[in-house]
Amino acid sequence: MPVLFAPAASDFHAQHSPFGAFASFTVGRHGQTGGFGLELGAPAKQDVYVALVRGNDSDDRNTVRALPFYTGAQNGGAEAYTGAATTKNAPVLWNAYAPDEIKREMGFATDSWTTNGGLTFRLLTPFGAVPDPLTKSDDALRAALCPAILAEVTLDNTAHEGDAWAFFGVADADPLRPLSDVPGANLCGMARETCWGFATFAADDVQESQDWNLQEKVAGASVTVPQTVQRLANRGGLLLHVPPGESKTFTVALGFYRGGVVTSGVSASYLYSRLFTGLEDVLAYALKNADATKRIATERDAELDAAPLNESRRFLLAHATHSYHASTMLLHDETGDLVLSPRESCHRPLWVVNEGEYRMMNTFDLTVDQAFWELKYHPWTLRNTLDLFCARYRYYDEAQDATDPSRPRFLGGISFTHDMGVANAFSPHGYSSYERPNLDDCFSYMTAEQLLNWCLTAALYGITTGDRYWLGLRHDILVACLHSLLHRDGPDGMRNGIISLDSSRCENGQEITTYDSLDASLGQSRSNAYIAVKTWATYLALGRCFHLLGHDEAAALSEEQAALAAQAIASHFDAKEGYLPAVFEGDNPGNASRIVPAIEGLAFPYLLGDRDAVSETGPFGELISLLKTHLATVLQKGVCIDTESGGVKMSSTSTNTWMSKIFLSQFVAESVLGVRLADSVDDAHAKWQTQGAARNFAFTDQVTSDDGTDLGSRYYPRGVTAVLWLRPR
Amino acid sequence: MPVLFAPAASDFHAQHSPFGAFASFTVGRHGQTGGFGLELGAPAKQDVYVALVRGNDSDDRNTVRALPFYTGAQNGGAEAYTGAATTKNAPVLWNAYAPDEIKREMGFATDSWTTNGGLTFRLLTPFGAVPDPLTKSDDALRAALCPAILAEVTLDNTAHEGDAWAFFGVADADPLRPLSDVPGANLCGMARETCWGFATFAADDVQESQDWNLQEKVAGASVTVPQTVQRLANRGGLLLHVPPGESKTFTVALGFYRGGVVTSGVSASYLYSRLFTGLEDVLAYALKNADATKRIATERDAELDAAPLNESRRFLLAHATHSYHASTMLLHDETGDLVLSPRESCHRPLWVVNEGEYRMMNTFDLTVDQAFWELKYHPWTLRNTLDLFCARYRYYDEAQDATDPSRPRFLGGISFTHDMGVANAFSPHGYSSYERPNLDDCFSYMTAEQLLNWCLTAALYGITTGDRYWLGLRHDILVACLHSLLHRDGPDGMRNGIISLDSSRCENGQEITTYDSLDASLGQSRSNAYIAVKTWATYLALGRCFHLLGHDEAAALSEEQAALAAQAIASHFDAKEGYLPAVFEGDNPGNASRIVPAIEGLAFPYLLGDRDAVSETGPFGELISLLKTHLATVLQKGVCIDTESGGVKMSSTSTNTWMSKIFLSQFVAESVLGVRLADSVDDAHAKWQTQGAARNFAFTDQVTSDDGTDLGSRYYPRGVTAVLWLRPR
Repeated sequence: MPVLFAPAASDFHAQHSPFGAFASFTVGRHGQTGGFGLELGAPAKQDVYVALVRGNDSDDRNTVRALPFYTGAQNGGAEAYTGAATTKNAPVLWNAYAPDEIKREMGFATDSWTTNGGLTFRLLTPFGAVPDPLTKSDDALRAALCPAILAEVTLDNTAHEGDAWAFFGVADADPLRPLSDVPGANLCGMARETCWGFATFAADDVQESQDWNLQEKVAGASVTVPQTVQRLANRGGLLLHVPPGESKTFTVALGFYRGGVVTSGVSASYLYSRLFTGLEDVLAYALKNADATKRIATERDAELDAAPLNESRRFLLAHATHSYHASTMLLHDETGDLVLSPRESCHRPLWVVNEGEYRMMNTFDLTVDQAFWELKYHPWTLRNTLDLFCARYRYYDEAQDATDPSRPRFLGGISFTHDMGVANAFSPHGYSSYERPNLDDCFSYMTAEQLLNWCLTAALYGITTGDRYWLGLRHDILVACLHSLLHRDGPDGMRNGIISLDSSRCENGQEITTYDSLDASLGQSRSNAYIAVKTWATYLALGRCFHLLGHDEAAALSEEQAALAAQAIASHFDAKEGYLPAVFEGDNPGNASRIVPAIEGLAFPYLLGDRDAVSETGPFGELISLLKTHLATVLQKGVCIDTESGGVKMSSTSTNTWMSKIFLSQFVAESVLGVRLADSVDDAHAKWQTQGAARNFAFTDQVTSDDGTDLGSRYYPRGVTAVLWLRPR
Repeated sequence: MPVLFAPAASDFHAQHSPFGAFASFTVGRHGQTGGFGLELGAPAKQDVYVALVRGNDSDDRNTVRALPFYTGAQNGGAEAYTGAATTKNAPVLWNAYAPDEIKREMGFATDSWTTNGGLTFRLLTPFGAVPDPLTKSDDALRAALCPAILAEVTLDNTAHEGDAWAFFGVADADPLRPLSDVPGANLCGMARETCWGFATFAADDVQESQDWNLQEKVAGASVTVPQTVQRLANRGGLLLHVPPGESKTFTVALGFYRGGVVTSGVSASYLYSRLFTGLEDVLAYALKNADATKRIATERDAELDAAPLNESRRFLLAHATHSYHASTMLLHDETGDLVLSPRESCHRPLWVVNEGEYRMMNTFDLTVDQAFWELKYHPWTLRNTLDLFCARYRYYDEAQDATDPSRPRFLGGISFTHDMGVANAFSPHGYSSYERPNLDDCFSYMTAEQLLNWCLTAALYGITTGDRYWLGLRHDILVACLHSLLHRDGPDGMRNGIISLDSSRCENGQEITTYDSLDASLGQSRSNAYIAVKTWATYLALGRCFHLLGHDEAAALSEEQAALAAQAIASHFDAKEGYLPAVFEGDNPGNASRIVPAIEGLAFPYLLGDRDAVSETGPFGELISLLKTHLATVLQKGVCIDTESGGVKMSSTSTNTWMSKIFLSQFVAESVLGVRLADSVDDAHAKWQTQGAARNFAFTDQVTSDDGTDLGSRYYPRGVTAVLWLRPR
C-alpha cells in the first residue's frame, strides 16, 4: 500500500507534474495556496477547492465539506469561509475537513486524500522509461510527453438518500475561461488563458461553475438550477453530480501548455509544443488515454510498495520523485545552433533540469546526483546534458596557487561550468550564471568539482548503458579531462592524486565545493576530503573508460593517479580520533569537522561495477577500511547524528544539511560499506519534510537538522538520489 | 511647453507604451512599484531606479540621489534605503529626491522628470498615423509596430570636478539577464527572460550592473572597478558615466516581446512577432531608429502645446493617450478562421483594445468612444473591430416586455455583444464575457446600446473616411440594424422612436446601459433619456449611410424614426424644472435624476457633418433647445457640478462619475451647444488623476466626484475621448 500518513504528518505540499513540462500542480498544505504553476520556483498562489456537497435532510441548505487547500481553511473543520465580501445572501459555510478526518496516502506515482464523508481525491503522476526522442516518431512520443496529469474524484453516495456533488476548482488572480466554449472539443472545465487548465469530457453529470462567489454557488448546487458561468470571474471548477445510492469516480485531466520560444541564449521551445497544438489538445489526449496512464501509475505504486524499504524511505523517494519531475524541461532547439552530435542533427531535443527555487538550468552538482535516476528511466537525457556541456559549457583555464594567486600560474585545462543559465536564460558560451571571480565562498568557481562531475557522469552514462559509440565520440574530451585533472593535482613531480591548485578563473578568490553554504569543512575545494575521495573515484572511472576505448596508456595513467590519491587520503587519516579530517590542511578551521560526504565518492566505482575497488580486501582496502572507520565515528549522536531530531547532519560542525546528499551517503553506507542506519533516522528525515517548515515548499533539500526548517533548495529536484535505495543488494 | 506639474501634483503613475503591444512601462508614483508589464491590468511590481551618483569631495563615498520610484522612497529625500539586509558593508544611503526637487512635465508623447541636481529622465512614447497593415510591406510596418519606447537619461556634469554616473535599472521578483551576453547584438542592458528589457548600444561609458545589493554596488561606482554582473540576481541596470565638465544624454530602449499564440477562442499572435525575431531584435531596431522616433515625439508634443487648451486639458489628454496605447493589442490571426472581408484574406490583422484593469476585449462601449481617436490616427482599426463584431459577435434575439417577460414575445433582430472576451480568451460566437441572463443590473445584457454602438461606429468610420466600398459590403447589416431598432421601439403602430422593449436574452432580467454601476438614472436601457437621444442620433446616422448607398426607402424610414424620437424625447421635458428626466417612466426612481449624458448623442450628427440636425434653428431645433436648457440646469453646483471638488458628475444623484464620458460631454456642450465650462472644472478633473487615489493606477476612468477616489476602470484606455477637444471649432 502507498504510505499512509498520521494526521499530523499529512499537512505538506507536494508537486504533481508531467514529464519535461517544468510545470506543477502543487497541493497538500492546509490553509495555504498552491495549484497550477508553470516555470515557477515556488508554489502558485491559487486556492484549490476539492469539496463534497450534500443535500441536508434537516435543512434546505446543502452541507459543504472541503479538503483544506484554500486560504482560511488552516483551522480545519472549525473554520468557516464565506466567499467574497460582496455576496448579497447570508454567508454560506464551507467547512474544511480537520486533519483527523482525512487519510492522506502517497505512492510512487499517486497522492490521495480520503475523507470520512465519502469523498476521495487522488492525483496520478505516472512516469516510467521515456524514449529517446531521436528514436521515435512524434506520434509515438505523445504518450510520454503529454504535459498533463490526472485527478480522480470519487464520491460514494451509496449510503445516502439525497443528491450529492463533488467539486474540483481553483481561484486564481485573473479570469478563467470555461472550456465548454471550445467548439468541437467536447470538454468541460476551466483554463487560465492558454497556459493551464483542467477538464473532463462533457457529460450529463458534469457542469462548469464560474463565479466570484464560487463557494456560495457551489453550496447552492441543485439538480434543477444550473450553475453560473460568469466568464469574467477568477474562480471556477467542475461540479460533479452523484445521485442517491450511487458511487462514481470522475477523471479530470490537469494540463499545462506554453507555446513559442521560451528561452534566451539558445532559442528553444517545449518539445511537447511540436506534438500538441495547444492546451485543449493536451487535455483531450490525456482524457482519451486515461486508462493506460492509470495503469502505469498503478504499476509504479506497486513497484515502490514491493521494495524492501521502511515507510519513511518509501515516502521520501515518492516525495522526491514528485518534485524531480516538476523541475524537468524537455525543449526543442528551434534555431539549429545546438547540433550536439551527429545523431542529433535533425531533431535537437534539449534537456534541462531546473534547480527548484533557484531556476538554474542543468546545475552540474545536480546532474551528477540525478544521474542515478536518469540512468534508470531516461539515460539519453544524461547524454544530452553531457553533450551540451561539451558544446557550450566547457572552458579552459590555467591553474594557480590559491594561497598566493600572484605566483606564476601552472598549466590548467578543460573544465565545465556550474550551470547553463538561470530562469530560462541560457548563459553565454563557457560561463555559468552562478560563478564569479574574486570570491572565496558562495558564487565562486567550482572548476575542479565540475570537472569530476563531467567525468563521473560520462562514465556512468557510457559504461552502464554500454553506449561505446558515444564514449568514442567523447574520447578527446575524456583525455582532456584526465590531463586537466593532472594539472590541478600540481606541477609534474609534485603530484599525489589530490587536487591542490585552483582555477585561474578565481582570480583573487578560491574554488569552492557544491556544499557552498555549509561551513569551512566543505568550503574550499583543494585538499578537501570529500573532493579527494571523489577525485580518486574519477580516476578509476576514467581508467574504466580508457580501457573500453583501448587507450591503455591513459588507463594506466588514470589508475596510477587513483593509487596515489588513495595513498594520500589514507595518510591524512587521524587514527587517534578515528576520522578523516574534512580539510587536509593543519591550520584550516574545517580540519576538526567530521563530514559524512567523505564517503560519497565510493558510490561511483560501486555503481560502475568495480566492486573490488570498494572492497576492504581489494587494491584500495586500506582506504575503504579507514572510510568505514570514519563512517562509524561520524554516525554518532552529537557528531553527524543530530541530538534533537536523530537525523543526519553533513558535518559535525553545522546543522545545515542536504537531504539528497544524505540519501546518497545512506546508499554508500549500506550498499558499499555494509553499515545500516536505524529506521528512526529515516523517520527523522521524513518528519523534516512533512512537519518542518520545509513542508511549505514540497521537496526541500537544504534544511536544519534539528527541526527541518527550510534553509534553501526549496521545491527541489535532487531528492531522487533516493532511487539508489531501490537497487538490489 | 509640456504640462509642468506643481510638486504636489507630480506624484502619479502614468503608462508608457508602444502601439499594439498591450504593454506598459508604468512609473511616476512615489514610493510604489511599477515598471515593465505585459498584458497586465495594473502596474507591475518592480522597483524602478533612476539615480545620479556623484563622487563626493569631502568623503570617499559617492552621493546617490534618485527619483522616488522604488519602495521605501515615499518620504522623499528624508528616507534612507540600505538595499538587501544581507549586505556585509555599512548601509549605503540612496536619498530619494523630494517632490520639490523634481520638475515633472508631461507632453502628448513624453513624460519627464528634471531634478535640481543635473539629472533628467525623459520617456518618449511617440505615436501617429498607423498604416493599415494590409496596405504595407512587413518591412514598412516595423517602424510603426516596434514594441519599444525610448528613455533619455541626461546628466549635466559641467559644473562639477568629479566623475558622475546616471543609473537606470529595475528590481523584479526573478533573475534578470545581461544583454551583453547576446553574441553580436552589441547591446548593453538587462532583460527579464524573453519578455521585456532595456538596452543601449555597448559603449565605453556604459556598463551593466547586476546584483542583489544593487543599490550598494551603484553607490560604489568607480572609474577603475567594474560593476558586478551576478546573473542570478533580480536587480540590474545600466551605469552611465559622465566625466567632469561634460553633459551627456543616453538613449535607452525599453522593449517588450511575447511570441507564439497568445489568445484562445481565436488563436492569434502579436503582429509584431511576424516583424521582429525577439526582444533583442526589437531593442536594436528601436535604438537604430531613435532619432526618427524622437522627432515624432517632438512633433506630437508641439501639436498639443499649440492646441488652444488650458493646462489641465492638455494634461488630461496626454495622460489618457498614454493609457490608451497601453491597452492596445494588434494581433495576427494565425489559424485563418477569421477572414473578415475580402480585403483581409491574406494577412488577417486582429485589433483589440483591452479594457484596462478588466482586460475585456473590444468592449463596444469603449470602441464607440475611442472611435474619435482611432478615426484620427488609424481608422482601419475601427473597420477591423466592426467586421469582427459582424463575423463573430453578432446575434439575433426576440424582443420582450421587460415589465412582464412572460407576455408573448415580439420580433427582435440583430445586435452585438458587449465585448469579445476577457483576459486573452475570445468568447464564443455570439457571446460576450460580460453579459448573463436574469439580472437587472451589472452583467445583464446591453443589446439595445450595442446595436446603437455598431450603427454609430459604422457611420463614423464609413462616412468620415469615405470608405463607401466598406459601407456597401455592410449594407445588409445596416438594413438589419434598422429593422432591429424598429422592432425594439415597439410593435408596429405603437412606435415613437424610443426603445421600449428588452432583449429576450435577458430572460427574467432587464437590459442595462454602459453606466452599469451608476444608479437608477442610467440603469435601465428602455425609456432612458441617454439611450433615447443616442437612438435619435443613430437613426440620423443610418439615414446618412442609406443615402450614400442610394437606398432611399431605408433612409426615409430612418429619418421618420428620428423625427418620432425627437418628438417623443421633447414630450418628456420637465419645463417647470427645466430638465429632461433620466428615465421616461413616472414612477421610476431614476426619474428625478439630472444626467449629463442626455446630451452625449448630439456628438454624432455633429461629427458626421450634419450641423443642421444639432442647430436650434434646424429641423430638430426644439429638441436642441430643450437639451441646451437641460444642460444649463444640470451644470450647476450641487446638481452635476460637485460642490466639493467642482468637477462634473454624470448624475445629480450619484458621486460615481466617468472621466471619459465627461470629456465627451464637454465637447458636446462646447462645440455643439456653445456652452463653455469654467477652467476650474478641468482643474478639478486633473486633480482627481494626479492627487486622488486614482493616481495609483495611471488613467482611471471611474472615480468619485468629490476627491477622485478610484472606483473602477483603472489603468483604462477610454480617456482619449478628450481628443475631441483638438477639433477645430
